Amino acid sequence: MLFRRGITLSSLARMHLSFSFPSCAPDSPLSKIPDICDPTIPFYTRATSLVNQFTTEELLNNTINYAPGVPRLGIPNYQWWTEALHGVAKSPGVNFDLSDPHAEFTSATQFPQTINLGATFDDDLYQQIASVIASEVRAYNNAGKAGLNLYSPLNINCFRDPRWGRGQETVGEDPLHMSRFAVSIVHGLQGPHAQNEAEGNKLTVAATCKHFLAYDLEQYDRGERYQFDAIVSKQDLSDFHLPQFRACVRDGGATTLMTSYNAVNNVPPSASKYYLQTLARQAWGLDKTHNYVTSDCDAVANVYDGHRYAQNYVEAAAKSINAGTDLDCGATYSENLGAALKQKLTDIATIRRAVIRMYASLVRLGYFDDPASQPLRQLTWKDVNSPSSQRLAYTSALSSITLLKNLDSTLPIKQKPTKIAIIGPYTNVSTSFSGNYAGPAAFNMTMVHAASQVFPDAKIVWVNGTDISGPYIPSDAQDAVKLTSDADSVVFAGGIDASIERESHDRKDIAWPPNQLRLIHELSQSRKKDKKSKLVVVQFGGGQLDGASLKSDDAVGALVWAGYPGQSASLAVWDILAGKAVPAGRLPVTQYPASYIDGLPESAMSLRPKAGYPGRTYKWYKGVPTYPFGHGLHYTTFSASLAKPQPYAIPTTPAAKGPEGVHAEHISVADVQANIKNTGKVASDYTALLFARHSNGPAPYPRKTLVGYTKVKNLSAGEESSVTIKITQAALARADEEGNQFLYPGSYQLELDTEEHRLASTTLVLTGEAVNVIPWVSGDMS
Amino acid sequence: MLFRRGITLSSLARMHLSFSFPSCAPDSPLSKIPDICDPTIPFYTRATSLVNQFTTEELLNNTINYAPGVPRLGIPNYQWWTEALHGVAKSPGVNFDLSDPHAEFTSATQFPQTINLGATFDDDLYQQIASVIASEVRAYNNAGKAGLNLYSPLNINCFRDPRWGRGQETVGEDPLHMSRFAVSIVHGLQGPHAQNEAEGNKLTVAATCKHFLAYDLEQYDRGERYQFDAIVSKQDLSDFHLPQFRACVRDGGATTLMTSYNAVNNVPPSASKYYLQTLARQAWGLDKTHNYVTSDCDAVANVYDGHRYAQNYVEAAAKSINAGTDLDCGATYSENLGAALKQKLTDIATIRRAVIRMYASLVRLGYFDDPASQPLRQLTWKDVNSPSSQRLAYTSALSSITLLKNLDSTLPIKQKPTKIAIIGPYTNVSTSFSGNYAGPAAFNMTMVHAASQVFPDAKIVWVNGTDISGPYIPSDAQDAVKLTSDADSVVFAGGIDASIERESHDRKDIAWPPNQLRLIHELSQSRKKDKKSKLVVVQFGGGQLDGASLKSDDAVGALVWAGYPGQSASLAVWDILAGKAVPAGRLPVTQYPASYIDGLPESAMSLRPKAGYPGRTYKWYKGVPTYPFGHGLHYTTFSASLAKPQPYAIPTTPAAKGPEGVHAEHISVADVQANIKNTGKVASDYTALLFARHSNGPAPYPRKTLVGYTKVKNLSAGEESSVTIKITQAALARADEEGNQFLYPGSYQLELDTEEHRLASTTLVLTGEAVNVIPWVSGDMS
Repeated sequence: MLFRRGITLSSLARMHLSFSFPSCAPDSPLSKIPDICDPTIPFYTRATSLVNQFTTEELLNNTINYAPGVPRLGIPNYQWWTEALHGVAKSPGVNFDLSDPHAEFTSATQFPQTINLGATFDDDLYQQIASVIASEVRAYNNAGKAGLNLYSPLNINCFRDPRWGRGQETVGEDPLHMSRFAVSIVHGLQGPHAQNEAEGNKLTVAATCKHFLAYDLEQYDRGERYQFDAIVSKQDLSDFHLPQFRACVRDGGATTLMTSYNAVNNVPPSASKYYLQTLARQAWGLDKTHNYVTSDCDAVANVYDGHRYAQNYVEAAAKSINAGTDLDCGATYSENLGAALKQKLTDIATIRRAVIRMYASLVRLGYFDDPASQPLRQLTWKDVNSPSSQRLAYTSALSSITLLKNLDSTLPIKQKPTKIAIIGPYTNVSTSFSGNYAGPAAFNMTMVHAASQVFPDAKIVWVNGTDISGPYIPSDAQDAVKLTSDADSVVFAGGIDASIERESHDRKDIAWPPNQLRLIHELSQSRKKDKKSKLVVVQFGGGQLDGASLKSDDAVGALVWAGYPGQSASLAVWDILAGKAVPAGRLPVTQYPASYIDGLPESAMSLRPKAGYPGRTYKWYKGVPTYPFGHGLHYTTFSASLAKPQPYAIPTTPAAKGPEGVHAEHISVADVQANIKNTGKVASDYTALLFARHSNGPAPYPRKTLVGYTKVKNLSAGEESSVTIKITQAALARADEEGNQFLYPGSYQLELDTEEHRLASTTLVLTGEAVNVIPWVSGDMS
Repeated sequence: MLFRRGITLSSLARMHLSFSFPSCAPDSPLSKIPDICDPTIPFYTRATSLVNQFTTEELLNNTINYAPGVPRLGIPNYQWWTEALHGVAKSPGVNFDLSDPHAEFTSATQFPQTINLGATFDDDLYQQIASVIASEVRAYNNAGKAGLNLYSPLNINCFRDPRWGRGQETVGEDPLHMSRFAVSIVHGLQGPHAQNEAEGNKLTVAATCKHFLAYDLEQYDRGERYQFDAIVSKQDLSDFHLPQFRACVRDGGATTLMTSYNAVNNVPPSASKYYLQTLARQAWGLDKTHNYVTSDCDAVANVYDGHRYAQNYVEAAAKSINAGTDLDCGATYSENLGAALKQKLTDIATIRRAVIRMYASLVRLGYFDDPASQPLRQLTWKDVNSPSSQRLAYTSALSSITLLKNLDSTLPIKQKPTKIAIIGPYTNVSTSFSGNYAGPAAFNMTMVHAASQVFPDAKIVWVNGTDISGPYIPSDAQDAVKLTSDADSVVFAGGIDASIERESHDRKDIAWPPNQLRLIHELSQSRKKDKKSKLVVVQFGGGQLDGASLKSDDAVGALVWAGYPGQSASLAVWDILAGKAVPAGRLPVTQYPASYIDGLPESAMSLRPKAGYPGRTYKWYKGVPTYPFGHGLHYTTFSASLAKPQPYAIPTTPAAKGPEGVHAEHISVADVQANIKNTGKVASDYTALLFARHSNGPAPYPRKTLVGYTKVKNLSAGEESSVTIKITQAALARADEEGNQFLYPGSYQLELDTEEHRLASTTLVLTGEAVNVIPWVSGDMS
């Protein structure tokens, strides 16, 4: 069936088109249809009136992402697939322009990759970035070069296995962090009016929460994501896979939910009434009239050809639309729902409802309304790459850079180096800094070029010495070592790139590529032998590499994790190395030892450790990480104290309610006051991570749990600042085997910062009885 | 009604989309439809079977260029508007790619603008270039980045008024030349199988003859092309406006005919049964089942809003489709044909026939057939910008460059200049060399850069001195003059560009911009005063500028017309200036004195002169041109003789027959043998233009008529070559006031080359009675 995916489905879904707005001008075809042109009428009513004009065949034709519209009614084609993960991104819905050097819409602000944003633990930053992205998407849309419905930026599947090629698209492995990220991003993207009914709930752009559910691998031992059946316990679903989707849909108010390729416990989510109807719509409130569910691209086809959950494509289409997947990113619906109607496997009302939901989102986006009344419709190319957006890309790159090791204050580099040598495969590249789902940046600067900007008086020399992977070539390495011999400062810029980790391509191991590692040690030992300054290693790439040998090599003075910092990558890195800016990033994932994956199938979903199974994420991994989740050093030192919070009496009735009620995520157990003091000599941000450790309720217990975080910005040397870290019921609750989230009475040890760098601790006591604060939503999951 | 054109019509029509192929794989929706997937069945049958599946609404939706396809049947969207005038060009159907420097499909071979090709008078070259363009379009199409149905490259409206902003898109003012160009280009584009029924008449790409009819201005005294009603006599239609369309459709076999914006004698061609049905389909054979008629973009709307030839858009749509305009480039059909059906202004069979015709062209293009069996489907980015194509772009640029003046052998530049000064607004530009409807070239080189390539040992200095237009700034001019003072060679690079002449923008005058002219003379007089080498002037731009003062200034040593030479512009110009290549181009238009347009409305269509009216083109202009049609000098000298042809007995019955018969264009009156000898010292091409002069039949008589041409390639010094120039009945025939083309008996003076440079002459005698060899096709023109 590969020819179908190759030709009919994916390639159709992936086609580009331009965007235009329909006209409601007098005498236009739309002006003759009731309601649709009247902005005072509710979204769904307007969309219903419009879509009621579609013939059956026009409905079928418009059930797919590359939608033909209805030209006879003046409804243009529409590509429902626009990506903007960390900036307007190359995708079927985006048309970057090429022509002469003066062309417009050639680029967009390229923010750091999401895993870098993870390292900032900065919810305000997430919202700011999303807000810029939304404006730039609007500018592109006004020029006909992007859609308004994003399949981004929300890859909110937690980074479960370090090999995942798309883990870089997430903020890491912690579901609390992921949930808060999701809400911030959706609010930033959808804009200030989205949550405001009085202002008409207008959207800047429509955001999508993806990939629902438990999608976190590209390949497994028997195939690819398209066939993968994730076997997940209710406990792990409840603890790890569902919270961020609940937050994204319910608290963020995202317009769209995307079903994933994989099946979950034998059922592909695209065809699951439980996941789409019972959970997403009924329990989480996705049933608002302007919401719709989209499949991932070809996921409806996979219901049959990946999972054999249907007998053929016709049944796959029928099962999916009946379950509530409104939009097929693909062509399975358009080509098979006609037959499904004939076979009475679905009905026209179901199909019409799906198309109405989609058009309701366009109504909500102002698609049919007078442009003159809409400030968003005035945005132009001049609003893309604005100085403040460019600055934000730079400062967020700075915030994301994480200092893992800094022996004897190797960094920052001493004031006036006369010669700097840069070695490694990232030395002279410029577009590798972007990571998955990027658009072209307005500029790209290599590490070599940026070095000459930051150190204008230094002589800069460079050579790769070795490639990202492949053989170690002794003569190349020796040339590299020779080049560094009289340098004041030597920086190795390496790690991994899209040749190693990307969509559809998971890693095979998590060690440093041996060719790079050998060169690093050759360099460091040469420095040591000649009694020169220690080697600085900058590690690029989204997934972590086991840096144990770099940690133990005392001639490697500093190890900096830079991830994929986006358009300002090299400048941000050098400004940190030079001390013109200071590091404050924290690892949003665990840096496991390389042996972690030995004998561990990527497809093994369980989080908790057992015999022969190491457990997953900082909560459950039973071994010793090379660098732990949350690790990150500074150029200054801090001290802190935590005020002991009041005991919390667990309410006797569960607080979790329906979509309109109050939820455990919003009920505060404690507002912990932390006093943070900069005890060193340079101003710095501080990322306050608060963990809880306990043994309340039934075993097993997680090693610890992130229960809150906040940022202290630009704390001057000697300055002290008091911040409040809120701990919610949801943050402390734990799932039982039935997936019910219980809040257990007892004593919780609160710890500020990682074990190795703990600044303060205190105790929080919960009194009363255990209460199920987030009950499992029951329903037929088969 | 402007908002309709701005929003609903043009902007929809101009939207981009990607291209994909439908699948005929087993189980695909198409595989279930009879015939369409069977390559052994005739085109029209296959297309009919397919389009019979379309519902009425799906038919309506697919009557426009930005066509939604029918996703439920597996028919992808299609953009019927792809441009490729002189290379794959920016247009709604073309998606040039932008991303990193390694991106594919970022450029295409950019040949010289068509007016430059006009200067080559080289039919073989036309076909070669078209063949390369077709291959590159196919490579783009295979990547989803271009359509297969071109709205190019045939702007075959003769360059009637020198002000026309799109005259540059034509090969000039002569209809014989235009006709032969049209046939060569269509054959090159549509490929070797198009005319071969045994091989299934497969097309490389589908070519369009445009703009039918008498479209040759952008603005006139009362408005724009959209409203213009061209009042044209049958005589001028028959002599000047129709021959090239007859040739393009009938002899070239072009797939598509495009109706123009303007009306002709009160009737917009889009709504004219006479032009579309009687002439194009019945008389010229456009009724083949794979032909269709398209409107120019919004020309159907103009039937109402431009010409008021209908009461409203509904009637405009009905009249146009009833007349035989199958495809609406716009959105008038899709939005109004539904109402037209209800009002019984048209019927569904007419609409269905139009869509069948369009799809028949796609069937003929192999759109529905197995890619493995189609070599054209294997073309990739590697087949774009191939070395041989790049070379062809360069050599065709060389062939097009026309030497207008060369006093005292100013050119070529003496062997080893030590300092070259380049002055003028074309000095340091690189993308201005392309002209209308270009795509990005793989490279662009400025005149400055190319000079340093051609004269690597010379010092190159440059300054603009003045802009294309605008004020003459004495201090800038003096700086420029000063810069040239010690130069061995001074080249002024100027003329006009897209700021002066382009689509939608005709020129207001045909003099040199006064700021440039003054600087040229300052420079030339400075050279003269200092007794330095004479000034060389290179004139860019498609329309001619009156060079009278340059002609008479004896310090201007050389004047070179370079037009828009495309991607190799600057290198080709310098290679000619340096004598590394030799000029052989000929003016394909008349260079009129600047006063020519005084009191002459652009809208006055008549060709023949009368009191107070100067007449048009070299055939009828009664004044003295600055440089005549056909003018062009060489670096060598030629002598020639013409063998006196046999008398020709005019047949007593007219030879013109129906589409399958023998036509006056194909019946030889004489094969004139010319012996050309290179009597100079360097090898050179020679462009043999044969004119006839006579006073047979009724007055008035044209001054002369181009009756044939051929190229002699690379004639060595001292070498002689014999060539045959065929004269057909059509070339000698003249229209009477009823539009009948008569061949008149009498003596015809044949002259080789222009009056000023005549190389030989002889006499051709026609005996017998005057015969109507191309009768006017009668019908209701109202």
